[in-house]
Amino acid sequence: MNTPFCGVIPPLVTPLTVDGELDLASLERLITRLLDSGVHGLFALGSSGEVAFFDDDMRAQVLDAVTGIVAGQVPVLAGCIDTQTHRVVSHIRAAEKTGVTGVVVTAPFYAITGQEEIRHHFTAIGEAATVPVLAYDIPVCVHTKLAPEMLMDLARTGAIVGVKDSSGDDVSFRRLALQNRAEGEPLALFTGHEVVVDGAYLSGAHGCVPGLGNVDPAGYVRLHTAAQAGDWEQVRLEQDRLAHLMEIAFAPVGKVGPAAGVGSFKTALQLLGVFDTNTMSAPMTALEGSNVDAVQDVLQKVGLL
Amino acid sequence: MNTPFCGVIPPLVTPLTVDGELDLASLERLITRLLDSGVHGLFALGSSGEVAFFDDDMRAQVLDAVTGIVAGQVPVLAGCIDTQTHRVVSHIRAAEKTGVTGVVVTAPFYAITGQEEIRHHFTAIGEAATVPVLAYDIPVCVHTKLAPEMLMDLARTGAIVGVKDSSGDDVSFRRLALQNRAEGEPLALFTGHEVVVDGAYLSGAHGCVPGLGNVDPAGYVRLHTAAQAGDWEQVRLEQDRLAHLMEIAFAPVGKVGPAAGVGSFKTALQLLGVFDTNTMSAPMTALEGSNVDAVQDVLQKVGLL
Amino acid sequence: MNTPFCGVIPPLVTPLTVDGELDLASLERLITRLLDSGVHGLFALGSSGEVAFFDDDMRAQVLDAVTGIVAGQVPVLAGCIDTQTHRVVSHIRAAEKTGVTGVVVTAPFYAITGQEEIRHHFTAIGEAATVPVLAYDIPVCVHTKLAPEMLMDLARTGAIVGVKDSSGDDVSFRRLALQNRAEGEPLALFTGHEVVVDGAYLSGAHGCVPGLGNVDPAGYVRLHTAAQAGDWEQVRLEQDRLAHLMEIAFAPVGKVGPAAGVGSFKTALQLLGVFDTNTMSAPMTALEGSNVDAVQDVLQKVGLL
Amino acid sequence: MNTPFCGVIPPLVTPLTVDGELDLASLERLITRLLDSGVHGLFALGSSGEVAFFDDDMRAQVLDAVTGIVAGQVPVLAGCIDTQTHRVVSHIRAAEKTGVTGVVVTAPFYAITGQEEIRHHFTAIGEAATVPVLAYDIPVCVHTKLAPEMLMDLARTGAIVGVKDSSGDDVSFRRLALQNRAEGEPLALFTGHEVVVDGAYLSGAHGCVPGLGNVDPAGYVRLHTAAQAGDWEQVRLEQDRLAHLMEIAFAPVGKVGPAAGVGSFKTALQLLGVFDTNTMSAPMTALEGSNVDAVQDVLQKVGLL
Repeated sequence: MNTPFCGVIPPLVTPLTVDGELDLASLERLITRLLDSGVHGLFALGSSGEVAFFDDDMRAQVLDAVTGIVAGQVPVLAGCIDTQTHRVVSHIRAAEKTGVTGVVVTAPFYAITGQEEIRHHFTAIGEAATVPVLAYDIPVCVHTKLAPEMLMDLARTGAIVGVKDSSGDDVSFRRLALQNRAEGEPLALFTGHEVVVDGAYLSGAHGCVPGLGNVDPAGYVRLHTAAQAGDWEQVRLEQDRLAHLMEIAFAPVGKVGPAAGVGSFKTALQLLGVFDTNTMSAPMTALEGSNVDAVQDVLQKVGLL
Repeated sequence: MNTPFCGVIPPLVTPLTVDGELDLASLERLITRLLDSGVHGLFALGSSGEVAFFDDDMRAQVLDAVTGIVAGQVPVLAGCIDTQTHRVVSHIRAAEKTGVTGVVVTAPFYAITGQEEIRHHFTAIGEAATVPVLAYDIPVCVHTKLAPEMLMDLARTGAIVGVKDSSGDDVSFRRLALQNRAEGEPLALFTGHEVVVDGAYLSGAHGCVPGLGNVDPAGYVRLHTAAQAGDWEQVRLEQDRLAHLMEIAFAPVGKVGPAAGVGSFKTALQLLGVFDTNTMSAPMTALEGSNVDAVQDVLQKVGLL
Repeated sequence: MNTPFCGVIPPLVTPLTVDGELDLASLERLITRLLDSGVHGLFALGSSGEVAFFDDDMRAQVLDAVTGIVAGQVPVLAGCIDTQTHRVVSHIRAAEKTGVTGVVVTAPFYAITGQEEIRHHFTAIGEAATVPVLAYDIPVCVHTKLAPEMLMDLARTGAIVGVKDSSGDDVSFRRLALQNRAEGEPLALFTGHEVVVDGAYLSGAHGCVPGLGNVDPAGYVRLHTAAQAGDWEQVRLEQDRLAHLMEIAFAPVGKVGPAAGVGSFKTALQLLGVFDTNTMSAPMTALEGSNVDAVQDVLQKVGLL
Repeated sequence: MNTPFCGVIPPLVTPLTVDGELDLASLERLITRLLDSGVHGLFALGSSGEVAFFDDDMRAQVLDAVTGIVAGQVPVLAGCIDTQTHRVVSHIRAAEKTGVTGVVVTAPFYAITGQEEIRHHFTAIGEAATVPVLAYDIPVCVHTKLAPEMLMDLARTGAIVGVKDSSGDDVSFRRLALQNRAEGEPLALFTGHEVVVDGAYLSGAHGCVPGLGNVDPAGYVRLHTAAQAGDWEQVRLEQDRLAHLMEIAFAPVGKVGPAAGVGSFKTALQLLGVFDTNTMSAPMTALEGSNVDAVQDVLQKVGLL
């Protein structure tokens, strides 16, 4: 592969103060814990990082802080997520200044776009970026699926060097992985689905970008190491343990989307002493009361607390 | 109604130079033509205005230009469209400085949000804005529908003073209009669907925000005037004529979404001598060749050329 | 138009005994009441008639009963709803034997079908049927939309003579009506949306097939008569009254789909003394307790009780 | 597990004569080839078996033929697929008479149904059936997803003894498998997704129901045997080979759904000398010309021809 990206690259959850400001102390504790666990990279400003809730200034603060704390120990990917091409290019320019190793870009959203426009979008971004670009396939947010054929075309022209798959479509992922291998693996392939990383590795993934990796980075590193060694039975057992842990994201009652998932990760990190608060960006609200208890209950059952 | 908003309020298409810059001369011709036709307001930076493709600087340029040209002759609405609450509030702050009369805001998008979060979103925006807020119901872009019950709740607290409905759900719109009338019309109701404005008026709409109004503002003004006079037969005939004209948006082959619809409006305006180009924002491309011919053909059949 | 179909054609709700058998006495009361109100036709075995819940024997019982009671006073349409072409043709054969005036057919469902297959489907059905065929556009049930262009093609070959539109897409309906008029009205157009019949008439509908017409047939007949006379103000007022009444379908808590809508119609008919029970087909259950009270409350407010 | 169902259970493709009749000779060749390859069961009248296209008589013919040919050598499952509860129960009664080992049932479709109705549906079916019932989770056809929590509830009451998952949702499947194991495996779990059987086995599947198994039963039997032995590297290699073969389903141009997928299986079986024709049920048409060549090309690359 022609990229430095491989292995476990958690999408950083962004700690906030109760006033919604970036909580630098918590961020430093989070990153230190992840690096100590042996993760192979970090992905700042992903969907789990609440990127869609942040303006340019907040995004710059996050990238400055992350690259500063990491100080080159592992590659750092930056999510450059916005509605359309020019706005994405602006974010890439800003990210490049902070010294990130690569950027992650979705299909356009809000305005309906066809396959022709999506192709133009990634081609233009590939030409504009001075760092490697990974395509982020996340139809639950952008409401279009990136077709394997188009991703391979973009790989051939060098517009993209990798794919982060959060599509929920494991059939499409297998087809992409198969074609990628047939062409000498121009793409680094990552799955974002916390509970089926093992299957994605069998399919041909080179790594994972699990939001749950913020909570249990060591588990995903063990899973990755076992997969590299071809010890699939160990992979499976570790995955089952992590799938149990992932129930924290399904435990909150009355919450959907990141208010449930990211909300549970932040709550777990607060319970683990890593974060000072579990504050969420408006219009989301933090988990409270019995929803916090439900997260704590799962952590205890899995042995993290 | 407690708002100055009523009647025909076209969502301004944004003319661009071939380099993608704001084309001020074309914009001035467009606005002059609309005001001369008797429109009752203007809506800048709507979906048809390519707002999702523009960064903060471009948005400010558009609002400065529009408010400058209009110079208080009619109310000006500004689309403050972005993914989440804080980003929307930033756009509202910027819009307020340009002297707009009101702002138009969608539900959050990209990150999945539940009804609780959407309610928080509009409540927070209603509190933050110093100008009236209209809710923009456009599930084709944001992938959630604003329920009539929630819109009436937001009306009661004063968070919103109107609704622009581009939901495609005429059943829901009728239910909203009925409830609005039962409570003394706290909301000004607008439809964005060019070819069924007549039905929306029967349902209880106070006005329309038709993208096609950029091309034929006089037709929509005649339709509105006839509706005010209760001359529904004239309303119907004018609507049928405008529905024929709207076929320009379905004529382009190989285009979807705004690349087809807004692309056809810009092409028509170029053919009518109002715009210098039919340039679209990246990653969209302008209509060309037989697609331009198809638009011209419809304009001729309807008698605009 | 080359069909006998025009005006108010309620889709008959099917009364059941508590054991789920066809309740002939209630059916006779219902039909008598509808005919006395001046409806222009009847549609048996539509979605509102629970056709999808009935086997061949029950369908035959319903058609025999309806055609027997109607005895040629008005045209009778039969829903021949099933998954694929051959099964639909079997239902048409059975329906023809009962003496119905025409049949109503949806796009195929369950198995995914493309536009090519849908075209084949209606073409084959048009060839097989000895009575006129109406296309039933109901994407909420079959999950594909019938494109106006295809419907006009089928009209030109004589495969269909009408369309019942329950698509919820008033933009598409206007485009269909416009094209239909341009070609001399080969199609009789009906809307199934109870609360926006007025807008559909402005668009070019020749009639309506309102489930709510089971409850208030006289209201829809008045609406139709006013529309024929061009008295749109009267049309609008009657539609608003009927839209108020339609709130019975939104009143039930904890119910969706026909369990709510058809359930409320049956409950209203029981409260009005027309039906002996409000029994629903399994796996649905009848409205009970506060849900019945909610229906009764709306009936009283609108003055039907 | 309390069922006889485990291992590779291909969903039988149904061979037709050019006139659309059941082709018994081809069916016998198909079943003989499958049994010779060591499959562990057969599933007649699944989606791949074109069940939605068949009337009661044709369904009876298929089940009689299959149970007759199999003659008890392996368990036979029968798809009892229809819109609503009573119609499904009728199919179950008919299937039971043919001596099938178990039945497979989907959620209701056509009429919108809520979670409450789906639960009633499966509960009623579990009570009515005298043979074991498997739930068939196939939202692409029925447009609702069966929630893992509900499936476990139905397992606890004994209403169902297994699940065939064609949901495309591998996250949900992992959660179901995890909960199933925690409760002592009351459910036999099968995946229908041909190219990710390996991942499903890691997740906890007990077998697979691959349409492609009609074409290469030996491959799936080798995959299953390797999984039973814990030889995951062999599982992965066999899966990759089968994933290559599955490209036959993506090769046809201008076809969607079963017209593409099942059409390619039938075409492959004809090319392999098992089927006499590749005829499809109306309104689908058989693959022809370059689409047949494309299937042949894949078969040759994978070494089956």
